[in-house]
Amino acid sequence: MVLTPITYFDVRSQKQCATNKKLVAEKPYARFFQDDMQVPLAMAKALQHGQMPRAQTLTPSLADIKTFLSDPRRFPDAGYAVLEGPTAYVQTRHEMPGVTSEMFKWWFLWHPIEKQRYMLWFPYAHVENYVEDPRRLADESLSYEQRLYHNPNTIGEYIGPSTLNAILHFSDPTELGCDATTLKRAGFTASASAWSAPCAAPDITFTLMLHLGREADNGLELFNRYWIGAHPELKRFPGGEKAPSFLKKMGLDQTGIENIAYEMAVHDMTEFSHLASVLPRIYGQFGPAC
Amino acid sequence: MVLTPITYFDVRSQKQCATNKKLVAEKPYARFFQDDMQVPLAMAKALQHGQMPRAQTLTPSLADIKTFLSDPRRFPDAGYAVLEGPTAYVQTRHEMPGVTSEMFKWWFLWHPIEKQRYMLWFPYAHVENYVEDPRRLADESLSYEQRLYHNPNTIGEYIGPSTLNAILHFSDPTELGCDATTLKRAGFTASASAWSAPCAAPDITFTLMLHLGREADNGLELFNRYWIGAHPELKRFPGGEKAPSFLKKMGLDQTGIENIAYEMAVHDMTEFSHLASVLPRIYGQFGPAC
Repeated sequence: MVLTPITYFDVRSQKQCATNKKLVAEKPYARFFQDDMQVPLAMAKALQHGQMPRAQTLTPSLADIKTFLSDPRRFPDAGYAVLEGPTAYVQTRHEMPGVTSEMFKWWFLWHPIEKQRYMLWFPYAHVENYVEDPRRLADESLSYEQRLYHNPNTIGEYIGPSTLNAILHFSDPTELGCDATTLKRAGFTASASAWSAPCAAPDITFTLMLHLGREADNGLELFNRYWIGAHPELKRFPGGEKAPSFLKKMGLDQTGIENIAYEMAVHDMTEFSHLASVLPRIYGQFGPAC
Repeated sequence: MVLTPITYFDVRSQKQCATNKKLVAEKPYARFFQDDMQVPLAMAKALQHGQMPRAQTLTPSLADIKTFLSDPRRFPDAGYAVLEGPTAYVQTRHEMPGVTSEMFKWWFLWHPIEKQRYMLWFPYAHVENYVEDPRRLADESLSYEQRLYHNPNTIGEYIGPSTLNAILHFSDPTELGCDATTLKRAGFTASASAWSAPCAAPDITFTLMLHLGREADNGLELFNRYWIGAHPELKRFPGGEKAPSFLKKMGLDQTGIENIAYEMAVHDMTEFSHLASVLPRIYGQFGPAC
């Protein structure tokens, strides 16, 4: 995997990076604030020539999710598209050398405790992060699932020129439409998957995201899928039937959704590449064994 | 000089690249349409941490331009800033291996004859290009100056998320404020410098740009300076005194101008790096000796 430096950060994100650097400076993990960010060259290139072929995309239907889980590597490693709804669709596959399932899950329990930790993940674009019940999230007597799931996580971040303020509802992947047997057969051992609602309309599901990891030879192999918008299949989540009217109210047409799809793909590419580069060392210093 | 691939092209520019590729396909120079673009890593990095220090910027005053020309390498190789006006300021220094003054000047006589030639220069962002008097531009019995200067050049291009539709008035650098003796002493042998007006307000100067080249050991050393906005010093150009009201009408405040400064810097970085990579071969096939 060839990594290459990011060549573009808009002015707003440059300012956020400077702000975040100051906010993190006093924290014990300040040295892990690295704003020299790299991404896989092949992934950056794969996203620069328009939407991926429709035949290689997946809807958030139970059937399509099962198709994906049955043979995750059958699909291209990176792509974006606009689906019915309209819905912004993103798919990526990340190789995260030196990262384990345990580290990955630990990250989702550790970082929402302080927004500065979230800033380590994407120094230019992460702004705000907190959970409804931080005590539960931090309670080491509970399981990963008990700590993270159904503990609403409010985030603020820049997705390209847009700002996303949303409430993530991390849930068991089987609650999100993943078949338990197929998940297990594919070897997935870590999930940080969620449906989410905009802060401005917390009763409307407008996103489903899957982050599913399995251990490969030299680290975690992470498969990410995002559906953002008003896909009819999102109706199985709370308020999903109201997503079309929310999109209209936000003025998000096909063009707007297509921009979000690409920008979300770039955001995902950047943040998970960067997480891979810092997580083993952060875990080494702040993980449960320390 | 380490070159690195561009990692971000917004959706609009991806579509433009696909359109341009088709438009160029039938032209004899189609093989020079290269959408695999690289930029100097040091320059990309220099632009990612906010505005450059004010002390290292220059206004478009005669005195400041003289200061610059007296010792061009005294200033940082890349930076952007917001100056009085507000005015978007960009400075870059490009090394163009294998490019000569003759090639560089030839490019400005050759490319505006067909917009498809302009697309070779920046496949993702160049849209439109024509001159008022193409016969004069192409007349080989005339000098460079006679062909290019005072032959208004209308361009359409994307500067980041903005669209620039402008009329460039290429002029002798001494008409733009460069002192002839200082220019000569610094060894400059090529210029493609202009003041320009928006197509929507052709009687208002809102930009001064200097592209000054001199031959170095392995190619052209190009110094670029842009002042875009309502700097008081632009009043010495036609309609420069009306620039402040134009900016207000366009809703361009400090934030908008700061965005334009960075996006213009990225645009310049990309197009001149790319031109360096293709010009020697294009000149070899289509230049005057061919």
